[in-house]
Amino acid sequence: MLVASRAFGSALRACPCRSACNLPKQFRTEALQRSRHFPVAYRPATRTMASEKDKAQQAAAEGPPAAQQPTIFDKIVSKDIPATILYEDATALAFKDISPQAPVHFLVIPKKKTGLTGLSQATESHEQLLGHLLVVASKVAKQEKLQEGYRVVINDGKEGCQSVYHLHLHLGWPPC
Amino acid sequence: MLVASRAFGSALRACPCRSACNLPKQFRTEALQRSRHFPVAYRPATRTMASEKDKAQQAAAEGPPAAQQPTIFDKIVSKDIPATILYEDATALAFKDISPQAPVHFLVIPKKKTGLTGLSQATESHEQLLGHLLVVASKVAKQEKLQEGYRVVINDGKEGCQSVYHLHLHLGWPPC
Repeated sequence: MLVASRAFGSALRACPCRSACNLPKQFRTEALQRSRHFPVAYRPATRTMASEKDKAQQAAAEGPPAAQQPTIFDKIVSKDIPATILYEDATALAFKDISPQAPVHFLVIPKKKTGLTGLSQATESHEQLLGHLLVVASKVAKQEKLQEGYRVVINDGKEGCQSVYHLHLHLGWPPC
Repeated sequence: MLVASRAFGSALRACPCRSACNLPKQFRTEALQRSRHFPVAYRPATRTMASEKDKAQQAAAEGPPAAQQPTIFDKIVSKDIPATILYEDATALAFKDISPQAPVHFLVIPKKKTGLTGLSQATESHEQLLGHLLVVASKVAKQEKLQEGYRVVINDGKEGCQSVYHLHLHLGWPPC
């Protein structure tokens, strides 16, 4: 794609990460088998990327659900669906993405949507909560030892590749 | 790049936008000259992408400046450097990126950094401000008629392709 943008993430194609040694354990073996250089070595995401696209397209086709309608994230909050929880407090939850698009990829969500199917629904009344989600993202990044950097992404709407209509922040490394 | 991630933006390669007719005026002429289909038609970003990479690499080499050190964004806030301002209030400023990576690409920044060289410096004391930046991003997206979706990105640190050490949110369309 020729509109490839470093700001918006396609810079993954020129990832500066150095070697498979830096990868989390679950990605390391395959990377080492193929090459010590991560960008060439790490191939599984080409499949999950397609599944992510499918999810977003499906969600777009179905249209945003009503604000009060439960999503898969509500079931993760209520523990009806298992997830690897990285952080939890009264209003926010951070957990590993079940279809990781990068070696480190987790989501931060508000436990209660309060109308926030997406960022486009945000009003002044959500400021404290939205800011808290960003602070939680930053905290969990430290906890996951991402001192050298990361990217936070919020997808909104059908042209923003939003796949679940419950506001969520993606945090990933490496992003570029 | 094989780690390409839809969540983190490389999905730009499969942009779903329909035709050049949807493009802002400044991108429309070239797009129409080449094709009515945006992803093929829009080529200038391949150049700005390289410049964005250079800026991030240069910033990484120099290292994050001290929190109190002024950045180019401080000069935009003080109007010493001109910018196309899209929104301004007491604490936040939104303006068009001078090296747009997509047809719509603007930044939202806090007028005063208050220590926020990047998201990794965020503490609970910044929650209200951070939330406000997200609400401003959402407002300006509406103002720019991005009802169908967009992506918000925060790059942090040298492995996060951060090019200016003054916290800023990128908002772009199309992101995927």
